[in-house]
Amino acid sequence: MRIHISSTFDSGNIIVRDASTAGNLSLAIRPDVGNKHLQWFHYRVTGCRGEALSMRIGNAKEASYPDGWNNYRACASYDRQEWFRVTTSYRDGVLHIDHTPERDSVYYAYFAPYSLQRHYDMLARCSSHGRCQLQVLGSTIDGRTVDMLHISANGWDMSRTGQTTPAAAREERKHCYFIARQHPGESMASWFMEGLLTRLLNDDDPLVRALLQRAVLHLVPNMNPDGSFRGHLRTNAVGANLNREWHEPSMDKSPEVYLVRQHMDQTGLRFCLDVHGDEALPYNFIAGADGVIDLPEHIRQARHQFVAALMRANPDFQSKYGYPKAALGKANMSMATNQLSHRFQALAMTLEQPFKDNQNAIDERHGWSPARCQQLGASSVDALMAVVDNI
Amino acid sequence: MRIHISSTFDSGNIIVRDASTAGNLSLAIRPDVGNKHLQWFHYRVTGCRGEALSMRIGNAKEASYPDGWNNYRACASYDRQEWFRVTTSYRDGVLHIDHTPERDSVYYAYFAPYSLQRHYDMLARCSSHGRCQLQVLGSTIDGRTVDMLHISANGWDMSRTGQTTPAAAREERKHCYFIARQHPGESMASWFMEGLLTRLLNDDDPLVRALLQRAVLHLVPNMNPDGSFRGHLRTNAVGANLNREWHEPSMDKSPEVYLVRQHMDQTGLRFCLDVHGDEALPYNFIAGADGVIDLPEHIRQARHQFVAALMRANPDFQSKYGYPKAALGKANMSMATNQLSHRFQALAMTLEQPFKDNQNAIDERHGWSPARCQQLGASSVDALMAVVDNI
Amino acid sequence: MRIHISSTFDSGNIIVRDASTAGNLSLAIRPDVGNKHLQWFHYRVTGCRGEALSMRIGNAKEASYPDGWNNYRACASYDRQEWFRVTTSYRDGVLHIDHTPERDSVYYAYFAPYSLQRHYDMLARCSSHGRCQLQVLGSTIDGRTVDMLHISANGWDMSRTGQTTPAAAREERKHCYFIARQHPGESMASWFMEGLLTRLLNDDDPLVRALLQRAVLHLVPNMNPDGSFRGHLRTNAVGANLNREWHEPSMDKSPEVYLVRQHMDQTGLRFCLDVHGDEALPYNFIAGADGVIDLPEHIRQARHQFVAALMRANPDFQSKYGYPKAALGKANMSMATNQLSHRFQALAMTLEQPFKDNQNAIDERHGWSPARCQQLGASSVDALMAVVDNI
Amino acid sequence: MRIHISSTFDSGNIIVRDASTAGNLSLAIRPDVGNKHLQWFHYRVTGCRGEALSMRIGNAKEASYPDGWNNYRACASYDRQEWFRVTTSYRDGVLHIDHTPERDSVYYAYFAPYSLQRHYDMLARCSSHGRCQLQVLGSTIDGRTVDMLHISANGWDMSRTGQTTPAAAREERKHCYFIARQHPGESMASWFMEGLLTRLLNDDDPLVRALLQRAVLHLVPNMNPDGSFRGHLRTNAVGANLNREWHEPSMDKSPEVYLVRQHMDQTGLRFCLDVHGDEALPYNFIAGADGVIDLPEHIRQARHQFVAALMRANPDFQSKYGYPKAALGKANMSMATNQLSHRFQALAMTLEQPFKDNQNAIDERHGWSPARCQQLGASSVDALMAVVDNI
Repeated sequence: MRIHISSTFDSGNIIVRDASTAGNLSLAIRPDVGNKHLQWFHYRVTGCRGEALSMRIGNAKEASYPDGWNNYRACASYDRQEWFRVTTSYRDGVLHIDHTPERDSVYYAYFAPYSLQRHYDMLARCSSHGRCQLQVLGSTIDGRTVDMLHISANGWDMSRTGQTTPAAAREERKHCYFIARQHPGESMASWFMEGLLTRLLNDDDPLVRALLQRAVLHLVPNMNPDGSFRGHLRTNAVGANLNREWHEPSMDKSPEVYLVRQHMDQTGLRFCLDVHGDEALPYNFIAGADGVIDLPEHIRQARHQFVAALMRANPDFQSKYGYPKAALGKANMSMATNQLSHRFQALAMTLEQPFKDNQNAIDERHGWSPARCQQLGASSVDALMAVVDNI
Repeated sequence: MRIHISSTFDSGNIIVRDASTAGNLSLAIRPDVGNKHLQWFHYRVTGCRGEALSMRIGNAKEASYPDGWNNYRACASYDRQEWFRVTTSYRDGVLHIDHTPERDSVYYAYFAPYSLQRHYDMLARCSSHGRCQLQVLGSTIDGRTVDMLHISANGWDMSRTGQTTPAAAREERKHCYFIARQHPGESMASWFMEGLLTRLLNDDDPLVRALLQRAVLHLVPNMNPDGSFRGHLRTNAVGANLNREWHEPSMDKSPEVYLVRQHMDQTGLRFCLDVHGDEALPYNFIAGADGVIDLPEHIRQARHQFVAALMRANPDFQSKYGYPKAALGKANMSMATNQLSHRFQALAMTLEQPFKDNQNAIDERHGWSPARCQQLGASSVDALMAVVDNI
Repeated sequence: MRIHISSTFDSGNIIVRDASTAGNLSLAIRPDVGNKHLQWFHYRVTGCRGEALSMRIGNAKEASYPDGWNNYRACASYDRQEWFRVTTSYRDGVLHIDHTPERDSVYYAYFAPYSLQRHYDMLARCSSHGRCQLQVLGSTIDGRTVDMLHISANGWDMSRTGQTTPAAAREERKHCYFIARQHPGESMASWFMEGLLTRLLNDDDPLVRALLQRAVLHLVPNMNPDGSFRGHLRTNAVGANLNREWHEPSMDKSPEVYLVRQHMDQTGLRFCLDVHGDEALPYNFIAGADGVIDLPEHIRQARHQFVAALMRANPDFQSKYGYPKAALGKANMSMATNQLSHRFQALAMTLEQPFKDNQNAIDERHGWSPARCQQLGASSVDALMAVVDNI
Repeated sequence: MRIHISSTFDSGNIIVRDASTAGNLSLAIRPDVGNKHLQWFHYRVTGCRGEALSMRIGNAKEASYPDGWNNYRACASYDRQEWFRVTTSYRDGVLHIDHTPERDSVYYAYFAPYSLQRHYDMLARCSSHGRCQLQVLGSTIDGRTVDMLHISANGWDMSRTGQTTPAAAREERKHCYFIARQHPGESMASWFMEGLLTRLLNDDDPLVRALLQRAVLHLVPNMNPDGSFRGHLRTNAVGANLNREWHEPSMDKSPEVYLVRQHMDQTGLRFCLDVHGDEALPYNFIAGADGVIDLPEHIRQARHQFVAALMRANPDFQSKYGYPKAALGKANMSMATNQLSHRFQALAMTLEQPFKDNQNAIDERHGWSPARCQQLGASSVDALMAVVDNI
């Protein structure tokens, strides 16, 4: 059979320059709208069983984060369920992926993809649960929905226990947000959210039950469905980097941020975790609002508590490696974490997961993987619980 | 919460004229490219828990098969897993769907949808099985792949039994085809194929094992991925009805048919089942190549055997109701069944499933359903086995 | 770690003569109460990872069916889910089982065991289904229950369809019985029943739905729970071979048969399949009531139809090999099949499955296996449907 | 159908005095061997659909813990999977259970049972995992095995990561024990162990991975299989209360304790959690070795850390309610916790779960349930991790 390469599917991204020879497949990544960003790739190769495929991504040096290619290994899957790592090297500005598939058909991707179809399935499953509501805040530029899930104890109170939370107690619950996939190429953020949501809707989880006595949760599992579907790395359908829009979002350029921020303004916000992936650093870490000048001291304390609790619950998370801290007053207020910290005097943080692996606990076969993302998402319940009374 | 209606997703199709009042939601179906066909709809409503939704599809009278609306009930789902029927009526040229959702979010569709994502998942799962190969025949107009699965006993011979089929016996195996979704709005055809494929890849199924001693199977689970994704009823990306292209397919207008027919010409063909859905008739039935003038008598006999065996294995199938038979010599040779019957002097048939229900065995809650489609697909193994030695 | 052999559990059976050396483990089978029968064994070995175990069953020549040891391979399992075959030979009256386990703990058995616990779980699952009723007919000698399941369309009629079967039609339904495990060492009979019951309670199975329009089913998944738990081969708690008790059962010696036959007398009986395993023959086959002198001709015909239909639905079944036929008038009327054929002028048959494998379709790894037993049980629905109108 | 009550199965226990009238079923609990203890019951009622069953356990006042009946509600199940609570009251020394079953067959029990069959299934599943070994320490009085599982990082090191733990580091790992079901009627202890074991064998759990860098785990999921099978409340086959045998166990009277303590002596012991259930108190709590005179201060500290960490990870656990503390020097050294604390100067504790419910978080339908036991077992990983470096 002849080799065929395709990417015309949800979050697919590859340009085929020459696929005539298994030993020399010449490829390129299609940049985001606006031509400023590229790094995400996702494609299927067929007709390749037992062939030593040598795939070369020629424009890898133009990637948004060329450092991301160092020590990086590409993800592959036969069954679209297990994603394993394959031999990859970056040299002379070209990314080389070398793999001899055991099956006729194999997918390659920058990280295990998370399709919009799976996203809508998850929304449907969640909103079938009495404790969870789905709200459409409005539309994206491509006409997709900006979907927010609300989770509160009410349903549980009624169906599982004899007690009903009094109205007064309900009023005092804190509004806590989780948002993910501002950058659509960071699919690990979706796996994180799936792990978190699965835990939140487990009726037998005592920590969730305790958390929902204290908090109402608002989750945006995918801030950027247009970019996700298009196979973008960092931007939406008009090339806007959503995480540079929080100071002044607009319905024209960044309706996703506009609509979510509007909802936050309506409810107030005591906590927000903005879930991301980092191309270069092989660690899970938090980036905080260090540069925000008016951040209250108890919020700085709460951040340390959150970090400590997350490390305790999940050793895949750490605090040693991370971004350099912004100097006080130098915060970029267009970013969600800084804007929300300032705007609400609240605990807002960016959580970064690796595209590569957690260097402290190497998994040779899978690297950083969907299962570990899900675990980390689930562990964020422990960490939020540790601070919810202090924010 | 405000009501919001969306269809910007795989196989979505609705035009919202006015969604301001739950009691009077004015909708229309977007026609296929070319404006000749419309009937498939698929959309999500949110913000509607406990609201008495009255949805009116204003252009229902322009549907390709207005008779399809009589006694029809629309499909709905909260969790995208179970699809149940809701109150529907057709009067004055308008389709009325009335439903009070129990959840915030609910999907409505002409029939339980089968997404391309699920299609690619199934291909990946199948091609991970040693007995199955995936081949890309070429590309559609929108750039998607035309995917064919080949299933033969070889893998099984080697892994599960002490015997290996001799080369001679392998040579004599008959080439049998199953194709589906020429008409993309007939999603029941995909559920049929999923049931069939699941059975074919069950290593413990003795009938499959016996069948694969006698036949090599070639399956095209989705002949029309472009139309499927676009939410078309009957045509591909340029408005071609694929089941009117088999006499003279072209790479410009109907590459899907061109590529599949080419493969059939290469292998020869003894059997082809073309899986469809019928908008009007509430029965499962076979439409044969009655009008083909040169059909051999043993093939006519084999068709009767096939029909009898399928009824025996699965009483949801029947032979009393169906299309009127074409007069001898009056066959439309642009249709797959007629063209292939003539071209290969082989047993080619069209299988039709209802959009409504099987009138002989009503399921009040689900109507004709994915689970029953899958059962019928699985039962087609019994029917093919009954004729494979005679074709 | 030291090797340890245990059998103090449900259906366990082994006597350890000497377990001091992995290379020479001396074992014996504990005979049934009454000392007339032995062949079933079931035990666990621990402390054996990587050890070349050589197990010798010294009294194998005293087995009820020494021919059963020829070409027999013992079953083994690490996880109690997958049972695979291991090297076995019978020489000089000793059964030799040779195996080097890959895990610390491994089970060996004459055939994949089916515990009473699983039996009670299945009863509970079945009787939670609206279409199925559980009735205790009375008690065994060890004080266990004789459990019968009744399956009829009533529940289904009400919950799934608009139609309710009229009382008259209900009256005409035929009483059809399936009984299994008269001989407790024939655990394949339980796997058969599990496959059958699983199919019967699938709400989406159209053939079951059609069958239940015509028949009421009565099933005894385990006729001999005492013998099953004790690890017997052929008898109950007082050493009675239940399949030699049907002419004159008693509450003292064979309450299991007494109670079931009494129920049959109350309802009448048009069909009974008595499910067994055969130690020697490597085939699935039917033994009929050939020797019964007054068997009506239409019942003889129906048996041929049943056999043909079962072969058609499931090629693991065949009619070439089987027991020699009893001469007319020479039927042993103490056996269920003969007694019931005569007593009710009905279609009663014994179905035999191999302990070894189906010689027509070898599975090197598993031999005849639980999955294939289940398939055969499911296929018996097709075969009963083929005759139900003629009996 | 007539009502029938049976208990001849794994952990069954009931005496039927009179079952002739649904409205007045007279029952009694069969005491443990030795006639000193009774409280566990477990039986099945059939022939009861729609009947208002009034069941009276006449000897309830002779129970080991009559206080356990106050505010207690019995457990019931149709499918043996979900166990729900039914109306129960204790008055005039009689336990009244009132329930109108919706099915023909229903089980009642003091707490959701955990069969030996499920126990052996779990052992088999665990010992199929490369990281886990099964060892038989010896035999019980009824001839069952005393089974211990060992879990260490070695398997994982090899299969999942690039790093192998150096021999030196392996040496320093601490020996940590979990034992359960000393008292066989406390089936919640088995559910706890299942939750713990399931977590320990999840290859993607980062906290387990970190724990196994520091500890080797030894688990006895069932200390008392004889008593469990017999349906005892507190003792083994000869009526010995195993948790009063730790000072001087013997192979005659308490081989289970003798063998396990011997293994502890061989490896040393830094941690032991002995998992129990309490008949009276509606809380989860720890009972420590307060009365042990020579307990090191750092161990007392570690206990507080353990308790705090377990509360943090799982709010179903609390420290406010519990047993009164023994005065210093007054510890009963025949109990596991006291004996092991003293013997090894280690952190040994008794964990108690309620038969009733956690009064702080009522679940009206299920009370304290298998799912919540499993969660608590899983959470004990967090708690052990919090202290492992300090013991």
